[in-house]
Order: sequence, then structure tokens, then C-alpha cells
Amino acid sequence: MDTLNVIKIGGNIIDSPKELQDFLASFSKLEGHNILVHGGGKTATHMADLLQLKTKMIDGRRITDDQTIDVVTMTYGGLINKQIVSQLQSLGTNALGLTGADGNLISANKRPEQNGIDYGWVGDPTSVNANWMDDLIRNGLVPVIAPLTHDGYGNILNTNADTIASVIAIAMSDHFEVSLTYCFELNGVLKKIDDPGSVIRELTQDSYESYKQDGSISSGMIPKLDNAFEAIKGGVKSVQIMSWKSISNLQKMDSNEYTSIK
Amino acid sequence: MDTLNVIKIGGNIIDSPKELQDFLASFSKLEGHNILVHGGGKTATHMADLLQLKTKMIDGRRITDDQTIDVVTMTYGGLINKQIVSQLQSLGTNALGLTGADGNLISANKRPEQNGIDYGWVGDPTSVNANWMDDLIRNGLVPVIAPLTHDGYGNILNTNADTIASVIAIAMSDHFEVSLTYCFELNGVLKKIDDPGSVIRELTQDSYESYKQDGSISSGMIPKLDNAFEAIKGGVKSVQIMSWKSISNLQKMDSNEYTSIK
Repeated sequence: MDTLNVIKIGGNIIDSPKELQDFLASFSKLEGHNILVHGGGKTATHMADLLQLKTKMIDGRRITDDQTIDVVTMTYGGLINKQIVSQLQSLGTNALGLTGADGNLISANKRPEQNGIDYGWVGDPTSVNANWMDDLIRNGLVPVIAPLTHDGYGNILNTNADTIASVIAIAMSDHFEVSLTYCFELNGVLKKIDDPGSVIRELTQDSYESYKQDGSISSGMIPKLDNAFEAIKGGVKSVQIMSWKSISNLQKMDSNEYTSIK
Repeated sequence: MDTLNVIKIGGNIIDSPKELQDFLASFSKLEGHNILVHGGGKTATHMADLLQLKTKMIDGRRITDDQTIDVVTMTYGGLINKQIVSQLQSLGTNALGLTGADGNLISANKRPEQNGIDYGWVGDPTSVNANWMDDLIRNGLVPVIAPLTHDGYGNILNTNADTIASVIAIAMSDHFEVSLTYCFELNGVLKKIDDPGSVIRELTQDSYESYKQDGSISSGMIPKLDNAFEAIKGGVKSVQIMSWKSISNLQKMDSNEYTSIK
């Protein structure tokens, strides 16, 4: 089986043009087949502020109302996605920007009300068009996926980028030996949030539960790690969490430089 | 040779959600292979107003400065493109939204200064990745193309949608028998601008020159018609200008209902 890297980058890289450029230069040099999934960063919030929209948050989560879905469609699917694609093209990587609506790549259900909270135009993925993705990749294209899905009724849905990376990696596991990498600003999951050297080298479901119970793993990491464990359970060969600065060493790294999900 | 319809829709349809919906319903029922090229409409201007950007115009043409290219990338490549794609998906058409950067579809040169006027991030197409487009179409995908190209140096360029439709139609003429249709709000090119019944049935290069000289053809139509004649010269089998409301009759229309470019 051929190998495939699914790499997810988050907001912090996207908010810094210089870091994004450095990351893309490293990404474009990765060997083999690659898919890039990107988050939204602060661009959507910044744009909503400029447009004087009120961002409605509940428990730290943005409520995606009619105006907000337009803003995230513009910024994630338009501005950020096309800037990444055009930069990768300039680096000789034949990037293709996609949302879940394009080629029916990722269908999703609009999230039903939960405990009386209506999250608005938010989608939970239900299926991935893996055969088409396989065709694209084997034809030399590098999909660059924005965190947007669609419901099949003509609506775009806002979807967590960590979840997109996980469902894409799982779906591609029937076609490739998939390595899924979550990139962020730290070297990995830390045992002590203030100690950059306290990277947890291997995280199992059991040790994850312990770290959660003793409070070592902060609440912000939990959705990402839940997605990471879902990927492992779903047949993804390896899942790791690391600094985007280490991406150039992805295929030759020592295991103390990142967190490996087991 | 298989046939391929390249259909271009402009701003007026895009600015009206109901008309866009009706058009897409007709478009999704067209037989054979299809490509849709869309313009930007007033969305970008509206967005620029909301963002309190000053739209700089010279001779009726928008100057695409740093902020404006971001706004058109968001609105053309993000909002409008993905709304069309998700609506077509809901109609059973496997649409794929593209800019010229995606898959290196359309490379362009940044327009050099002309008569001391710097148009900014505006691109004039130089090449089309027709082989890839051919692959996509034969795999059942329907490309939906936003009026954006790229320069190969990491920059997105704003490009006239009529020109995009023309260069795409010409490039695909080596692969298909191409029919290029410019849709707008009138039934065709009018001999008298106030008389909707005065549709010019056939327009040749000679009659075009006469109509321009006697002032029958207004200045707004000239760039569109220049692109239409370029397409004919470039090997496109048929080029017509018609109301988007007639699109459902495209393959069985009587020639008095639209303008045919000869």
C-alpha cells in the first residue's frame, strides 16, 4: 500500500503570513502523497468584527448564524484556501483547494439542537468521497481542504478542522497507509503546560484518561485528542501531534520530539 | 467528438438569489458535459463598502489593490462559488468549484501598466490546463469557475469572467465540440437598446464593426463581444449571447431568440 500524509494546520500558523510561508515551503518538500487540511484562524473573527457582526459564543464555541456562515465561507473557502493554493502552486506543488461541497467531498448533517443550544450552520460529517480523492491524489494533485462541509440541501456547514482531518484520514485508510499529523505551536501534548520539555511521547487511551482526570491535559486539547483517537480506531496507521516547525523531519523524527497517539 | 457547453453567467443573476436558483435548476438539467463560469456581481462592491474600503475606479474599471484582491478572492472564490456549488450538489449535479490557481487551471500575467495606469492585481490569461479539465469532465464533474487566475508566483489575480469563459472554451476545443453561451438579462444583442424585440440574430465580424461605428452596440457590450469573436476565431464551434431564462432551450432554440456569433 502507498503511504499518504494527512497534515492539519491550525489557526496560529494561518494568522502569521511568515510562518505560513515557512510551513508551506516545508510541506511542499514532503515526499509521497499529501493532503493539507487547514483551520480558519482569527481571519473570520477579524472579518466579522470589520463587518460589525456580533459573534455569538456559547461555551467558547461560535454560533454559526446566517451571517456567520457567509463570513466563514468567504474566509475559509475563499481567502485562506486560495492563498494557500496559490502559494503552493508557486512552490511547484499542484494544489487543489476544496470544501466538502466540491465534488461532494464531505457530506454532513446539520447539528441538531443540543441541550437547548442551536449551534446554527454547523455540520457533523457523515461520508467522504474517498474514491474521488484517491483519483485526485494518484493524478498528482494535492488537496487543500477548508473546514466546510455541505448538507446536500444546498447549505454550506461550518465544521471543525480537526474533525475534517480525522474523517479524511479514516476514509483514505482503505486506499493508503495513512499518517495523520496535527500541527500546532507546541512540540506535542505537554504533561505540564508551562514546561515545553514535558512532551508526552506516547499517549494511549488509558494514559489519556488519567491525564484528563488529573487535569494535566487542558480542555482545549480534548477535542483534538478525541479526533486523534477516533482516527487510530478508524484504521489510520499513525497519528501524531507536533510543532509545524518539525514537519520537515516528519519521516525521520525521533519519538521524543512529538506526541504519538497509540 | 463529444459536445461541451461552456455557460457564463454574470452579475445580475448572482445578485438575485431567486433568479440564481432558477438558473441553476435549468443548468443542472442540461444534457452532456457542462462548465459554468460565473462573474462577481455586486457582492464584492457591497463587501468593500461594508469594510469601508474605497473602491478606486479608472474609466469604469475597478483598480484591484491589495485589499481589493482579498475581497474578490473571498467573495468570488469563496462565497459565490461555494453557494453555487452547494446548490448544484443539491440538484444532483456533481459541481467542483475552481479558481485559476486550483490545479493550475488558468495561469495569467499580471497586467503591466497601461498609459500610466496600474490596474493592480489583474491578470490576463496565458494558459489553460485543458488536459486536467478534460479528465474532470469525463469523470462526471461539472467545473464551476470563479473569475480568478494566478501568476505562478503565489499571487491571485482578478480576471474578467467573459475572458475566462472565452479562454476556457478555446482551450477545450481540442477536446470537445464546444458551445459557448454568454447569459445575461436581455434576449441577445439589441439593435436598439430600448427595443427588447430588436435582437440581432447573427453577428459577423463585419456587421459588428458597422454596429460599433453607427453606435448601435453600446460600449458595455464591446468587451463581451470581443471575447465572443476571439472564441470563434479560436476554434469554438458555436458562440451565442442570450437571456439566462432561455438556457433550458439551449439545444433546441430557434435562432431568432438569441444572438449567434459567426
